Amino acid sequence: MHQKKIPIAILGATGMVGQRFIELLIDHPWFEIIAITGSERSVGKRYADAAHWMMTTPLPENIADMLIDSTVPILPCDIVFSALDSKVAGEIEDNFAKSGYLVISNSSSHRMDENVPLLIPEVNPSQLELVEKQLAKGTGAIVTNPNCSAVGIAMSFKPLLDIVDIESAHIVTMQAISGAGYPGVSAFDITDNIIPHISGEEKKIQIELPKIFASLEDGNLFYHAMKISAQCNRVPVVDGHTACISLKLKRPIASEELINAWNTFKGEPQKLNLPSAPKSPVIYLKEHHFPQPKMHRNLGKGMSVSIGRLQPCTFMDLKFIVLSHNTIRGAAGGALLNAELLVKKGLLSALQNSKLKNHALASC
Amino acid sequence: MHQKKIPIAILGATGMVGQRFIELLIDHPWFEIIAITGSERSVGKRYADAAHWMMTTPLPENIADMLIDSTVPILPCDIVFSALDSKVAGEIEDNFAKSGYLVISNSSSHRMDENVPLLIPEVNPSQLELVEKQLAKGTGAIVTNPNCSAVGIAMSFKPLLDIVDIESAHIVTMQAISGAGYPGVSAFDITDNIIPHISGEEKKIQIELPKIFASLEDGNLFYHAMKISAQCNRVPVVDGHTACISLKLKRPIASEELINAWNTFKGEPQKLNLPSAPKSPVIYLKEHHFPQPKMHRNLGKGMSVSIGRLQPCTFMDLKFIVLSHNTIRGAAGGALLNAELLVKKGLLSALQNSKLKNHALASC
Amino acid sequence: MHQKKIPIAILGATGMVGQRFIELLIDHPWFEIIAITGSERSVGKRYADAAHWMMTTPLPENIADMLIDSTVPILPCDIVFSALDSKVAGEIEDNFAKSGYLVISNSSSHRMDENVPLLIPEVNPSQLELVEKQLAKGTGAIVTNPNCSAVGIAMSFKPLLDIVDIESAHIVTMQAISGAGYPGVSAFDITDNIIPHISGEEKKIQIELPKIFASLEDGNLFYHAMKISAQCNRVPVVDGHTACISLKLKRPIASEELINAWNTFKGEPQKLNLPSAPKSPVIYLKEHHFPQPKMHRNLGKGMSVSIGRLQPCTFMDLKFIVLSHNTIRGAAGGALLNAELLVKKGLLSALQNSKLKNHALASC
Amino acid sequence: MHQKKIPIAILGATGMVGQRFIELLIDHPWFEIIAITGSERSVGKRYADAAHWMMTTPLPENIADMLIDSTVPILPCDIVFSALDSKVAGEIEDNFAKSGYLVISNSSSHRMDENVPLLIPEVNPSQLELVEKQLAKGTGAIVTNPNCSAVGIAMSFKPLLDIVDIESAHIVTMQAISGAGYPGVSAFDITDNIIPHISGEEKKIQIELPKIFASLEDGNLFYHAMKISAQCNRVPVVDGHTACISLKLKRPIASEELINAWNTFKGEPQKLNLPSAPKSPVIYLKEHHFPQPKMHRNLGKGMSVSIGRLQPCTFMDLKFIVLSHNTIRGAAGGALLNAELLVKKGLLSALQNSKLKNHALASC
Repeated sequence: MHQKKIPIAILGATGMVGQRFIELLIDHPWFEIIAITGSERSVGKRYADAAHWMMTTPLPENIADMLIDSTVPILPCDIVFSALDSKVAGEIEDNFAKSGYLVISNSSSHRMDENVPLLIPEVNPSQLELVEKQLAKGTGAIVTNPNCSAVGIAMSFKPLLDIVDIESAHIVTMQAISGAGYPGVSAFDITDNIIPHISGEEKKIQIELPKIFASLEDGNLFYHAMKISAQCNRVPVVDGHTACISLKLKRPIASEELINAWNTFKGEPQKLNLPSAPKSPVIYLKEHHFPQPKMHRNLGKGMSVSIGRLQPCTFMDLKFIVLSHNTIRGAAGGALLNAELLVKKGLLSALQNSKLKNHALASC
Repeated sequence: MHQKKIPIAILGATGMVGQRFIELLIDHPWFEIIAITGSERSVGKRYADAAHWMMTTPLPENIADMLIDSTVPILPCDIVFSALDSKVAGEIEDNFAKSGYLVISNSSSHRMDENVPLLIPEVNPSQLELVEKQLAKGTGAIVTNPNCSAVGIAMSFKPLLDIVDIESAHIVTMQAISGAGYPGVSAFDITDNIIPHISGEEKKIQIELPKIFASLEDGNLFYHAMKISAQCNRVPVVDGHTACISLKLKRPIASEELINAWNTFKGEPQKLNLPSAPKSPVIYLKEHHFPQPKMHRNLGKGMSVSIGRLQPCTFMDLKFIVLSHNTIRGAAGGALLNAELLVKKGLLSALQNSKLKNHALASC
Repeated sequence: MHQKKIPIAILGATGMVGQRFIELLIDHPWFEIIAITGSERSVGKRYADAAHWMMTTPLPENIADMLIDSTVPILPCDIVFSALDSKVAGEIEDNFAKSGYLVISNSSSHRMDENVPLLIPEVNPSQLELVEKQLAKGTGAIVTNPNCSAVGIAMSFKPLLDIVDIESAHIVTMQAISGAGYPGVSAFDITDNIIPHISGEEKKIQIELPKIFASLEDGNLFYHAMKISAQCNRVPVVDGHTACISLKLKRPIASEELINAWNTFKGEPQKLNLPSAPKSPVIYLKEHHFPQPKMHRNLGKGMSVSIGRLQPCTFMDLKFIVLSHNTIRGAAGGALLNAELLVKKGLLSALQNSKLKNHALASC
Repeated sequence: MHQKKIPIAILGATGMVGQRFIELLIDHPWFEIIAITGSERSVGKRYADAAHWMMTTPLPENIADMLIDSTVPILPCDIVFSALDSKVAGEIEDNFAKSGYLVISNSSSHRMDENVPLLIPEVNPSQLELVEKQLAKGTGAIVTNPNCSAVGIAMSFKPLLDIVDIESAHIVTMQAISGAGYPGVSAFDITDNIIPHISGEEKKIQIELPKIFASLEDGNLFYHAMKISAQCNRVPVVDGHTACISLKLKRPIASEELINAWNTFKGEPQKLNLPSAPKSPVIYLKEHHFPQPKMHRNLGKGMSVSIGRLQPCTFMDLKFIVLSHNTIRGAAGGALLNAELLVKKGLLSALQNSKLKNHALASC
């Protein structure tokens, strides 16, 4: 399908998520990194000199030698992946979108914006309709993926919601160090320790899940009414967020039915055979001591979500554990899958056609 | 009060909890270790040769040189502390009790027995009444302390229950490595990892809390009706169990009132000035990232329970975090405080008098 | 070359190294697992039920369902990989060799035997001559790979020894948890800690390196005269042994020459293009804070050795750091590469021909 | 002796070492904290608001409420403890010394200065002579303690050097996270990892040990001729630096003699009964797997150095392991002991008398 690769740029490419983007895009069958941007003090430097490379895949020489660009919308491509810090992402992403780019953002800045999809391709591909609304204004568009913890939780909810509605969800997370970026958490703080607080995280989980499961009517989102209570903890785990979830459902559901729903679940990415789509987006592990971050975070190359320990809850309906790789499925990998879905669904072409038309009009 | 120290023995003294008993009893103002027992293969060995000493306090030479006794009820003392493994504790403790000993047990074997107190001196000292019932049969008695996670949780509940009743409690624990004993958890399993299961632990928390808060009428326990849902995880922390708790209450309560109740709470041990009683049994920490195991597990020499992050819960009433030292307050220290309470309340004297009387009768 | 796969068995397949063997052999182009053996209490069980699977690659169903065989030499294959514990490996491996098997052993039992190669294919492939000596006796043969720490050290020495001789080597290791097998090290012992002793390890390094670099004359090994002093420590790292090495050389050598020798080094496995041979067996990393276990243990799929921090030593000649994956290059992967070399060099065919001949003679 | 406590100030009191100073000085029998200073952005804030308190001893309220002063020499005391970062310590400490203060510094800035003692009270108390040289110029004086790793190593050398001279020392360290200050090492970097490099550390160990053991003739230091080779690693340990040491001696020495020398060693602080002096400055542990950071770093309240695993070295003379608490004995505790020695030896009085005299002269 893609004879020549689609050029893309990575905004804010030196941090934890930016590096994951590079790692995942190095050998991507559709996309090719043609620019990487960084903050003022990095611009003009070789990538290898500006970034403290933390991935275990060695940094390829062509990326190592790439010079870092300014994060301004004059990059020769139509798609940009944003790994920008939320402190600065809001305005910059807006500028890129207004300048006609498809911004595939991992930042939290625009997640709750009215016309911005909070997209997980297996869960709510219909939110792409919002991209069309953005494009219809003659600009580019912003697409976001949810908070790194919310993604895995949402993926565990989706097959369940196909059967029965959720009234309320009690969530306690145990989140990995890499979720704090780099340098992120001080080793003195987290070694032999737990930090029972992650700034802003509980609120994000509580507000994003209702949007992820919103219904769309006439192009408008109507948030899901589920009540969410989240308590977030940082634990001494390198990668992989774990969530302990208890649910109150509209009606009871048999364990076997739910496990079967999880294990047989396929979403759009699987049907469309997208390059980053895991064969099994959700995997229920029946061993009583699973899932575990060290063991299962890399299932499906970090794109599968693992679930375990489904059991009745004494006063809600059921409880279980969800694990997902926070910087792959929960960040760069999720964003990449979003981009693949957009391309496959023709939204890049739509953008490009609209640009050609505008250009033609402009040159009359 | 105690001119000559009370001789005591430690049953099963080579493991993690046995060592904590030794550490806490070495310089105890009331008690003196006169015997330590172990399994068959340890009997007759020097303690230092049979045990892999893990405490950071150096092992005193007099204990190091003590020879390990068989765990049979012929020890020259009236009080024995049991750090026996639950697999064997049931029968052995029974034998000791029948033979006239006060068995201060950390094992789970007899916790749910009808006439056995599940005692936390600050929380339910009235359960001592059950000891009297046992003694009344002309035997010794067994006193237990709750599961290591349940203790801290119960201590956080007590000042709250003095204000308003609890309908249901949702509990997710993050438990320390030392809770599994020694050698316990494999380092390969827990380094950079979480194990979302601890055998039997969830059930213990769920059944013990209603007994801890039972009411006593005519010497019979009526369990509290609170519904408990517990999910237990092992985390890479050496000492200190953390619990994330959400509560449904009979009626709302103001945060300030609860915090004040926690911070001003005193129990019997504080009133009686027991040697192992912490000045503050419960400490609310107002910093938003507290309590933390590494920072707070040793408050009150490991006998204080730390609480933090009190906040409203979206669909229950409130939530907070509790931390307690699992092998001190949650095990050996808790048992020791139980023993101190028994002695102070005259139950050792009662036992001894009854023995004298029996002896007198027997020799008539 | 191999149209039909060569059947192999794994002896002692339930432990850490046995599991690595399975992981590496699942999709091997030449070999096919046809039997797995275990201890008495595992025999007859499904592998999935007998083993606590610890690899991050999911256990394939065909292996999960395989029934565990006794470890006796009646297996329908010519090659067996031994992951047996050293306590029992000695006699069992002898039996297999006498019964005509090629025993590819990771155990230490026979490493120092006169006619048994202590083989690293990149370092001393000429020791295969010893296999021929064993086969010449009409039996099978045993081939061993060195201690997990010694392998990486030896690979760092080889390109250097091609230039200048080593007089003495001072070695301090920091060894991973997985090196102790499973359950191995207690998490209580190693979390937030170092254990400055590993039983038998220092001696193994000190005696094995002279054999690895032995010269062969008329089929006899003459050990290298290098003096080795090793001090071994266990550190809280999951996989990957690090060694700090200082060397006294026969004459000085320029850093650039040595770095170049390391980076350009190729051994027999690379020349023969063996399936498990890493492209670069030795990689010098110029960053001043490399190599690091988490970053580099998986280079070359765990078969490359990483080196860094080459610098002059104040009173010896030079010093540097070596890192290797202890259960891949240092154990199962190294053994597998040994097997590949044996097959490629015709020693399996030699064994099979000799068996045919014996069989023919026997049936006369 | 000290009826009224001696007022002192702590310069740079918000970091890791500054906090240790506070913790150690809170209940000090001689000294009383009357001021704490910080960087520009902290000045005027409450200490509790400016510092991220990391000690497990709760921060006392009187310190929490203390306002942070500028780090300028107008503090109402004669002794200042410097926990300043080496980047700024040089000039600031000079200013304080010139202004008449006794500067007890933990910084590396002035350690190698000609007239500045590099003091360990048990090892080289005679270097106090250099303080007199400084005071003789009519100024205050600077006293430094060595690098956190060098201190423990030097203390292990001292009893040995009392018997036989050291020709060369090969040192490999495994250093704790707290040695990097706060936030210091990123948890992402060090969890499940080793970093085989600590900036500047190897050089410090190599140059400081010869000064520590310098001989003093006519007030001039003549550095010891021992050759030192150090290789430094960061490991995932919270507190406690471990060093693997091999020594070449002028002549052989019996193990028993050395062990006895270590275990019976007493220095000036022990003889003078200084408040922070541990009873046993050096402790040889005979268990083959000791010393261990988690077990032994707090011996002697963190002021004792633990040694273990004495054994012959294949080509040097002997080797052993040394452990010391890097932020207590290796930093704040060591500096405090230096101050206690200075006071006990009359150098504070000397300074005060000289000031009085100058003042008297000035007011003539």
